[in-house]
Amino acid sequence: MDQSIYSSYPPPLDPAQEQFLVTTVKDWTIHNGLTVRPSPASLPAGADEKGVLATNAPVTLFPSLFPKSCFEEATALQKAYNELYANITCDTAWLEKVMEELIDVDDFISSLWKVHLAVQKEGYVQPLSLGLYRSDYMVHVPPNATAPSIKQVEFNTISSSFGGLSSLVTAMHTELLSFPPGQPISYPQHPLLDGRLPPENTAVPTLAAGLAAAHEAYGPSKSTPSLPLCVLFVVQDGERNLFDQLALSSQLTRFHKIPVFRLVTSEILNQTSIPSSNPSRPLLYTPPFSPSTPFEVTTVYLRSFYTPSDYKSERDWDARLQLERSAAIKCPTVLNQLAGCKKIQQVLAEPSGPDNLSRFLPRTEPSMISNLRGTFAPQYDLSANGRGRELALNPETAVKHVLKPQREGGGNNIYKADIPEFLRSIPETDWKRWVLMEMIQPPPTAKNVVLRSDGQVLSGHVIGELGVFGTILWKDNGDIIHNEQGGWLMRTKGKESNEGGVAAGFSSLDSVILI
Amino acid sequence: MDQSIYSSYPPPLDPAQEQFLVTTVKDWTIHNGLTVRPSPASLPAGADEKGVLATNAPVTLFPSLFPKSCFEEATALQKAYNELYANITCDTAWLEKVMEELIDVDDFISSLWKVHLAVQKEGYVQPLSLGLYRSDYMVHVPPNATAPSIKQVEFNTISSSFGGLSSLVTAMHTELLSFPPGQPISYPQHPLLDGRLPPENTAVPTLAAGLAAAHEAYGPSKSTPSLPLCVLFVVQDGERNLFDQLALSSQLTRFHKIPVFRLVTSEILNQTSIPSSNPSRPLLYTPPFSPSTPFEVTTVYLRSFYTPSDYKSERDWDARLQLERSAAIKCPTVLNQLAGCKKIQQVLAEPSGPDNLSRFLPRTEPSMISNLRGTFAPQYDLSANGRGRELALNPETAVKHVLKPQREGGGNNIYKADIPEFLRSIPETDWKRWVLMEMIQPPPTAKNVVLRSDGQVLSGHVIGELGVFGTILWKDNGDIIHNEQGGWLMRTKGKESNEGGVAAGFSSLDSVILI
Repeated sequence: MDQSIYSSYPPPLDPAQEQFLVTTVKDWTIHNGLTVRPSPASLPAGADEKGVLATNAPVTLFPSLFPKSCFEEATALQKAYNELYANITCDTAWLEKVMEELIDVDDFISSLWKVHLAVQKEGYVQPLSLGLYRSDYMVHVPPNATAPSIKQVEFNTISSSFGGLSSLVTAMHTELLSFPPGQPISYPQHPLLDGRLPPENTAVPTLAAGLAAAHEAYGPSKSTPSLPLCVLFVVQDGERNLFDQLALSSQLTRFHKIPVFRLVTSEILNQTSIPSSNPSRPLLYTPPFSPSTPFEVTTVYLRSFYTPSDYKSERDWDARLQLERSAAIKCPTVLNQLAGCKKIQQVLAEPSGPDNLSRFLPRTEPSMISNLRGTFAPQYDLSANGRGRELALNPETAVKHVLKPQREGGGNNIYKADIPEFLRSIPETDWKRWVLMEMIQPPPTAKNVVLRSDGQVLSGHVIGELGVFGTILWKDNGDIIHNEQGGWLMRTKGKESNEGGVAAGFSSLDSVILI
Repeated sequence: MDQSIYSSYPPPLDPAQEQFLVTTVKDWTIHNGLTVRPSPASLPAGADEKGVLATNAPVTLFPSLFPKSCFEEATALQKAYNELYANITCDTAWLEKVMEELIDVDDFISSLWKVHLAVQKEGYVQPLSLGLYRSDYMVHVPPNATAPSIKQVEFNTISSSFGGLSSLVTAMHTELLSFPPGQPISYPQHPLLDGRLPPENTAVPTLAAGLAAAHEAYGPSKSTPSLPLCVLFVVQDGERNLFDQLALSSQLTRFHKIPVFRLVTSEILNQTSIPSSNPSRPLLYTPPFSPSTPFEVTTVYLRSFYTPSDYKSERDWDARLQLERSAAIKCPTVLNQLAGCKKIQQVLAEPSGPDNLSRFLPRTEPSMISNLRGTFAPQYDLSANGRGRELALNPETAVKHVLKPQREGGGNNIYKADIPEFLRSIPETDWKRWVLMEMIQPPPTAKNVVLRSDGQVLSGHVIGELGVFGTILWKDNGDIIHNEQGGWLMRTKGKESNEGGVAAGFSSLDSVILI
């Protein structure tokens, strides 16, 4: 592929064009709920004491270019990826073996494992698990490559976010590209914008359908007398990204007619309970605003509890245990959350390791296995005498790598030349917590213009990351009840920034024009 | 009707119930675009320099009670009201006669009239006019009344607002009343909330269909070579209520596939023109962000120019003249705007005046005429030796009245005992600017709870005002091309406040439960 296509895109904006686009985007986002609560740091003290203000999510003004073949491959792989992570989660013994070392050194992983052990000892009562996943990729175009390929950045098994807002960005870019009807002029003329639109984005119906499938599969109330059933969204206190979550709960309520309640983690033990007299362990939710009408929870959807800071005390671990030991279907279970550790991705991707893909996908075509494997960038642990340690400590090879911690959520990667020095600064026993990954080489001249949540407009070179959503409902014996792919997320960050959390600065929600 | 129904509604909220409703409404409004830009006065200096913040429109937590018979009568009258104001507008001679006195004393009305005269002299080139109207009523329940009736507060012929946001409030209350599906518990139990929902609110499709009908009726481009056609929303600089307007423009663009542009009044003369060489006087709009693609404007929808402060200089009057003399269909024309003066309403309602209703609605059933007349509260001018002057100056009768200025927009009414003193404080020659109206007596014990845009929650006694939307497209010979009723607005204000502008304090968007 000719990389020069990136350097002539997007078309430059004169001041009147930029003003029109920025004004239109500012208004469109609020009109359509493509919003976040403003960061308290961005407001003067006392500006929003009652918590009513909102602002646009950070978005790009233009859709970004993305190779069509890469987009199609990423979406085509998702159902196999769903199944892979379901099957890994079913194999507790294998998971334990991989986790063993980490459990020793990582308090967070150790605490999660203890939740699993406690429930295992008592006996799990819910054989079904639900995954709402997002597999993140970057386009890889090393010098002299004949064609772009995709490399997986990470696979998210918990709190996979931005399905709601991403669908809205797709809709916004689609409207801009089509406005006004019959004579589009929102953007300056450019051959790549002439008649092209982003592909359909079905993230909201797909993810909601996954939750609805779990709700349905739960079956009748296990309480006597039977109780009305509901889905519970477990969320962080002070969540700023709640409008992304509301897109899913609205779809569940409006389309699927399923009751959904939001519950902050600190209230789990106050507002839920498991009757000790009922061996089925139904999870009961009693709305504080309607204490006489308890509900039985079919499905617990975690948009919290994915990162250590979500556990402020032992009480939060008790709350997690309460959810885990209940009969509610968890999205995800503790084991499925642990299957999303970087360590698992590294073991799968270890160039010289055993063929774990074929092991976990015994019924999958070899060509699909090979395609999955093709999305792995080489990854290594840092064990003594291993290839990873060698590559990480040698400054010449370190510069081609990134060092990633095990955990979800991003934010602590060590890059390139910083790696050897960083490793020498920490005890060697802690090296187990890290995975070394070969750097992916995205198109170097990609550009875009971003409207941040504080109204700043920034433009420059960017790196894009495509997330593909999938959802799977399975039984602990490996039976798959529901397995779907649908919807995607394009996140675009400034090249100055190395991290990808959209909420944290110059990183924005985007859509794609396929090229 | 038993008025005690109002005193037991709405059900009281305990703290957990109030917290649930307030949180849900804060999030619902932002998620669904039931929003306004925050008032600069409500934010610390520098809190929103880039103009990105939004907040909830002021809304009630509960739908208000409204007599079903009154609601049905108000909607049943609207098409006759549409026709009445279209026919008044066609009768320029009659209009001039009624306006004559005001033209002498009121600069604003005089300036509007001059715009008409200038275009009349040159000759109008567009025989079609579009009205997007809202007829506002209060429920009237004087002591000893056997049944409630409706009395018209005013009839709006220009910039009739809140169709967009009102539909959203209806949707929000409907969702709250239905949540969760199958087992509604958002509100405390109350017999009047059991299974009832607000009536359908079709304001957005109805108003947009009116604009679309005008766009269609305009016919082909009058330019050579022909130009693409568009609708122009003429708006105020710094409009905080723009999301109400975007509901209509989105419907026009998404459903009717009609190009819509927004233009602030100060840019009309920069961005529109009428080619002097074209006797058809097409109004051309050149988007500043795409100067090579001019559009021809079929329909000018005014959400500005309705109040004197919208005319900051002669240049703004020149801009209004440019729109008026063009071939674009105006919503409304200057004459139709003038037909909305309080003076016209007073002449129609004058108890001892000529039968203007029958004059202007010659083909309307007498029963309908009688129903229209039934919505008039007695209204009087203050001419020498007239009944109005007598009622206004006598303290005993003044207390049953309100003194209203001629103009749209509200904000300057004089109430009851204040009237005699006020009149004596101004020159008698200015009395022509005022209309005396008998006070409407709404249900005295109605209550509601309001979430303001700054997050304050207020509760107390309220007065509700029902607006009914209608739209009419007619030709200057009286032919009617399109005449529809659809959608409504419930506004609720605290009883402490006497004025009804939702944007200005404790006055909120609401919906209704019919009783």
